[in-house]
Amino acid sequence: MRTLFVSLLVAQITFAQAQTIHSPSHKLALRFALNAAGEPTYQLSHGKKTVLTPSRLGILLKDQAGFDKGFTVAGIDSSRHDDTWAPVWGEVKQIRNHYQELAVTLRQAGAQNRRLVLRFRLFDDGLGFRYEFPAQKSLNYFTVSDELTEFNLPADHTAFWIPGDYDTNEYAYTRSRLSAVDNRPVVEAGKSIAVRDAPDAQAVATPLMLKADDGLYVNIHEAAQVNYPAMQLHVDRATHHLKAQLVPDAVGTKAYLQAPAHTPWRTLVVSDKATDIIASKLILNLNEPSKIADTGWIKPMKFVGVWWEMQIGTGTWSYADRTDTLDAKGQLIPHGRHAANTQNVKRYIDFAAKHGIQGVLVEGWNTGWEDWFGNWKEEVFDFVTPYPDFNVTNIQQYAKSKGVSMIMHNETSGSVTNYERRLEAAYDFMNKHDYPAVKTGYVGRIIPRGEHHDGQWMSNHYVHVAQVAANHRVMVDMHEPVRPTGLHRTYPNWLACEAARGNEFNAFDPAGNPPEHETILPFTRLMGGPMDYTPGIFKLKNHVPGHPERQMHTTLTKQLALYVTLYSPLQMAADLPENYEPHLDAFQFIKDVPVDWDDTRVLLAEPGDYLAIARQAKGKDEWYLGAITDEQARNQEVKLDFLKLGQQYEATIYADGKGASWDKNPEAYQIRKQKVSSKTTLKLQLAAGGGTAISIKPLR
Amino acid sequence: MRTLFVSLLVAQITFAQAQTIHSPSHKLALRFALNAAGEPTYQLSHGKKTVLTPSRLGILLKDQAGFDKGFTVAGIDSSRHDDTWAPVWGEVKQIRNHYQELAVTLRQAGAQNRRLVLRFRLFDDGLGFRYEFPAQKSLNYFTVSDELTEFNLPADHTAFWIPGDYDTNEYAYTRSRLSAVDNRPVVEAGKSIAVRDAPDAQAVATPLMLKADDGLYVNIHEAAQVNYPAMQLHVDRATHHLKAQLVPDAVGTKAYLQAPAHTPWRTLVVSDKATDIIASKLILNLNEPSKIADTGWIKPMKFVGVWWEMQIGTGTWSYADRTDTLDAKGQLIPHGRHAANTQNVKRYIDFAAKHGIQGVLVEGWNTGWEDWFGNWKEEVFDFVTPYPDFNVTNIQQYAKSKGVSMIMHNETSGSVTNYERRLEAAYDFMNKHDYPAVKTGYVGRIIPRGEHHDGQWMSNHYVHVAQVAANHRVMVDMHEPVRPTGLHRTYPNWLACEAARGNEFNAFDPAGNPPEHETILPFTRLMGGPMDYTPGIFKLKNHVPGHPERQMHTTLTKQLALYVTLYSPLQMAADLPENYEPHLDAFQFIKDVPVDWDDTRVLLAEPGDYLAIARQAKGKDEWYLGAITDEQARNQEVKLDFLKLGQQYEATIYADGKGASWDKNPEAYQIRKQKVSSKTTLKLQLAAGGGTAISIKPLR
Repeated sequence: MRTLFVSLLVAQITFAQAQTIHSPSHKLALRFALNAAGEPTYQLSHGKKTVLTPSRLGILLKDQAGFDKGFTVAGIDSSRHDDTWAPVWGEVKQIRNHYQELAVTLRQAGAQNRRLVLRFRLFDDGLGFRYEFPAQKSLNYFTVSDELTEFNLPADHTAFWIPGDYDTNEYAYTRSRLSAVDNRPVVEAGKSIAVRDAPDAQAVATPLMLKADDGLYVNIHEAAQVNYPAMQLHVDRATHHLKAQLVPDAVGTKAYLQAPAHTPWRTLVVSDKATDIIASKLILNLNEPSKIADTGWIKPMKFVGVWWEMQIGTGTWSYADRTDTLDAKGQLIPHGRHAANTQNVKRYIDFAAKHGIQGVLVEGWNTGWEDWFGNWKEEVFDFVTPYPDFNVTNIQQYAKSKGVSMIMHNETSGSVTNYERRLEAAYDFMNKHDYPAVKTGYVGRIIPRGEHHDGQWMSNHYVHVAQVAANHRVMVDMHEPVRPTGLHRTYPNWLACEAARGNEFNAFDPAGNPPEHETILPFTRLMGGPMDYTPGIFKLKNHVPGHPERQMHTTLTKQLALYVTLYSPLQMAADLPENYEPHLDAFQFIKDVPVDWDDTRVLLAEPGDYLAIARQAKGKDEWYLGAITDEQARNQEVKLDFLKLGQQYEATIYADGKGASWDKNPEAYQIRKQKVSSKTTLKLQLAAGGGTAISIKPLR
Repeated sequence: MRTLFVSLLVAQITFAQAQTIHSPSHKLALRFALNAAGEPTYQLSHGKKTVLTPSRLGILLKDQAGFDKGFTVAGIDSSRHDDTWAPVWGEVKQIRNHYQELAVTLRQAGAQNRRLVLRFRLFDDGLGFRYEFPAQKSLNYFTVSDELTEFNLPADHTAFWIPGDYDTNEYAYTRSRLSAVDNRPVVEAGKSIAVRDAPDAQAVATPLMLKADDGLYVNIHEAAQVNYPAMQLHVDRATHHLKAQLVPDAVGTKAYLQAPAHTPWRTLVVSDKATDIIASKLILNLNEPSKIADTGWIKPMKFVGVWWEMQIGTGTWSYADRTDTLDAKGQLIPHGRHAANTQNVKRYIDFAAKHGIQGVLVEGWNTGWEDWFGNWKEEVFDFVTPYPDFNVTNIQQYAKSKGVSMIMHNETSGSVTNYERRLEAAYDFMNKHDYPAVKTGYVGRIIPRGEHHDGQWMSNHYVHVAQVAANHRVMVDMHEPVRPTGLHRTYPNWLACEAARGNEFNAFDPAGNPPEHETILPFTRLMGGPMDYTPGIFKLKNHVPGHPERQMHTTLTKQLALYVTLYSPLQMAADLPENYEPHLDAFQFIKDVPVDWDDTRVLLAEPGDYLAIARQAKGKDEWYLGAITDEQARNQEVKLDFLKLGQQYEATIYADGKGASWDKNPEAYQIRKQKVSSKTTLKLQLAAGGGTAISIKPLR
């Protein structure tokens, strides 16, 4: 008996205080350790390269001791996972989920004897880890006051960053060393962003893209951000250490949790090839499977819309000049520039029907736009009352007769309490009038006042909307939400988000989006999920009447290439029908390009410089290729070795025209056809700010 | 031309910078004046007595100049108003609205040239005034950061006060000189109040009851508090000056307004008779008429309910011990003490039917009570899912067969975002299951986090609920809302509120409600509207098993008298059926007493001491009289000269029994009948903490 006792005792105290695991192919190694103070730390290496030096882990709580120190290891679980799953829609038909897992159960000394589990999943392309708070006697409700997670980088990497702002992700990216991060001039310059709140000059948003001088690429973000605020990163410019910084709530705390609970996954995607970063499915793998049982009604689509004319100022969302511009009967007197009128909408329906575009979005269809923005007003829109010149029934019948789907628009102006009150009515209205999809908007300071777009409360709101929409069989495209973290796996009706600086800034912001912008987005914002960037602008200069100084920052064919390089199951052809009419030969690419794919190959990639991606259409032996560059003209070669061996194809190549450049001559393009096969190497000539789009279809 | 110019100029500058008006019978005089700095001030006198010395008026705004100084008088409007209106229900059949109005238009010098209107309405029993912000070029949206309104009292009056708490009005009253106001010990002692937040030790709530040494009674409150936070009062103990202090929102500001807008009315009810204070209809007169067109479905009523047994701890709201007390099928395992079970509910229905009580309230009928309180949890109740042992359909059918109405209960636990999301579903459920009324509850810290029960956002919420309820033809009784300000005139389906320290404190709070409590309530909380005090407790000692130290602080017949002295159109007979059964002779008074009246006479009153009120039943020549005292036994005479001349009546007198006293012998009572007429003077003998209830019915 005595022997047994001793051996049990030994077993209890012999849990190593440090553990190392390797990714399935041993590309990455993770070491977990407790330091002398019982503080958990982790470090990560990629071959011989250090990704992270020892970095602290921990969570501080309000009104009670934190989960930060005094730990011992009480249990170690390590296991291998390998399976494959099929997304409802996406860039590839199947996704392999292959990782080594390490779950460390930590115990704190003292009367409370609390437990915390740190769960690590180490993939060949990166790491995910999260904090788990098991149900236990001494932990029920708790409030997170700070998260101590560090990402201690070994050197002064180059970073592609936007400010860590509680309310927006709509900044242009800055490329700088970590030691030079200072978001104040960026925030100051962001005057056309509706709401900015970035109190920490050294905070940056995630996804944060980093490149080490030794060629290693590291992307830091999170997965499955549910019931927890967004994580931003505070940069210690001297040490290159990053620390998690959670978006606060109205009273300055961070998250209200009840055990059992867990944080989102903190993610690092790591590779010495930039193409691997974009191709990674790590974030999707860390999300939960679909909560929607029947997904047959969820259909990716392209759409046009009554929208760009408001961005360029030729039409308005509003119907009258002011709320008090009333006639003798108390009715609004129209100012005559309201874009969402029945006749104009039908013009878009006709255009969509003619060109096989599935959807038509209409913004400004509902009352409230005379006074909707900027005053923290709670009662703005009711989401169900059309303006007098928008005949919802007539439009719906007309669209149906043409085989076109109408896309609803619900702008909340940030008044989320008002939207939540009216949510069921709004989605009932969509069902009644046969809208299969809705674009939501959150332009403005949030109500509940004091809450932020990216805090816990709003994060829960977005999920709530996705769920309510699913209940109503409505697909959602959210504008101005928190940036995505792969939740479209769990809610596949949540097709896309904006949550970044979209093409629209080229209409209303004097600086617009610099030519490198779209080469950075896949490495940052798109790591978490699809973006409704609204590409496809064909009129690239003098598109904003009265503002000759404004222009798009791409060539025309780069706009085409974006349909491939910026993946989304919901893609707008954003320009006006009259701007497409003179270029129907180029528009053919937009008509052809799918929004759902069986396969994706990232051929060339360098953040801030260039990108070439090829994708195979869902269920077809057709491929589409998009190649883009920044402000540098480039000649590039792409091998078509992804094509089926022995099959001949016809490639239609939409390329920058002679003398094209984004700034001087953006609308010059040439279209040529060429026979290609898996043996072909194409030479692409990209103009400054240019791009090439290619459709590749099999020859009989 | 020159002459005309001059005379216009003179006309412009000859508005007096001071104005005095008198109330219709010249009882009160109000003087408005601008001081040298152009700051508006007002003062009020009652005959030769000073009510207020010159007191400042003004509003400060966030991010722009305030409406506080630099004013000149730009217009004066004075007019007399006199009409009579009929409330849907109430203490009297008709109400006269008779006042002298003074509207002063003020203009600020400078480029903005802004206008502000101060509107005063001077009644013979008091003053109402408010700030009005007209629509004007230089004012659209604005945010109130502070209200400067002062009530400068001429002396160190005696005050009956509770702390100025942002989240509760459930304190016992303190009687002290203004110079002695310090709410800290009161807040500290209020441990059984769910949420306390009183950061200013010298702030008191309104209605504030004051008594001057010269015998003048002054009550300060507000009327029609809509879209504005509750006003509390900061007491300058040295000067006896009071200053408005608005309950802040989550970000520390006070009110978000858009011109045209106005504040609630600030009210002073003034008389040298305490009885006049209680009888005043000034606050109702300052509210808007009913917004509900068809009010035929609104019916005052009495009710019993599955409720007191939870207060005394013999039953529970919850069904199981914990949320995770589950059987193998994942169903909650009942602990067997759940009060809202079908069988027990039917017992109450039977009791109500037998005794002609119209309604039965059931709390704890719906899932969520295992874990509902104290953790700022957002998702608690769904308001539509009954516990397994509460058969909503069966109960509804049974009640209907007995002619009894079920009263719904919606406890929000302060999670108002959750309630608003589910509001339509909750009221649809009531309609579907034929509930004509609902008791709502707000126990807990408010979500949206950082908002307070008494701030602008929540004030709008309560009105929103009243409106939604009206849309569904449901009557509302709100517990833990902001204290009322007469809005039941505008929303007559908003029958009652708690918003004060109810009878329940005698069950769960060791101190309970002191005997004087109910003699103060009509001078304070009830000035704004009816209270659901839940009187009628017959078991007055040893009513809380395991807590022999707790007891009610009245005698039995004082509980009866409360049905008259504490007016409400919704009155509970709060005790258990088994506690009524031994005293059905006394219970007869509860069966008889109406909840709607044609006339009311306040016969005797002194705040904190005693009260006697007689009321005439709606549409009948029946009178009911309630007389109560504080901890002092009293002999009082009441003249029945309100009875019809020449008519003989039979009075049934429910009086304290011999040797009765609240603390030693509370359940001793005697019932006697006596013939009375308008010539009769009754001699009442009230025990310590006692009371007398009398029904007076005409003899044929």
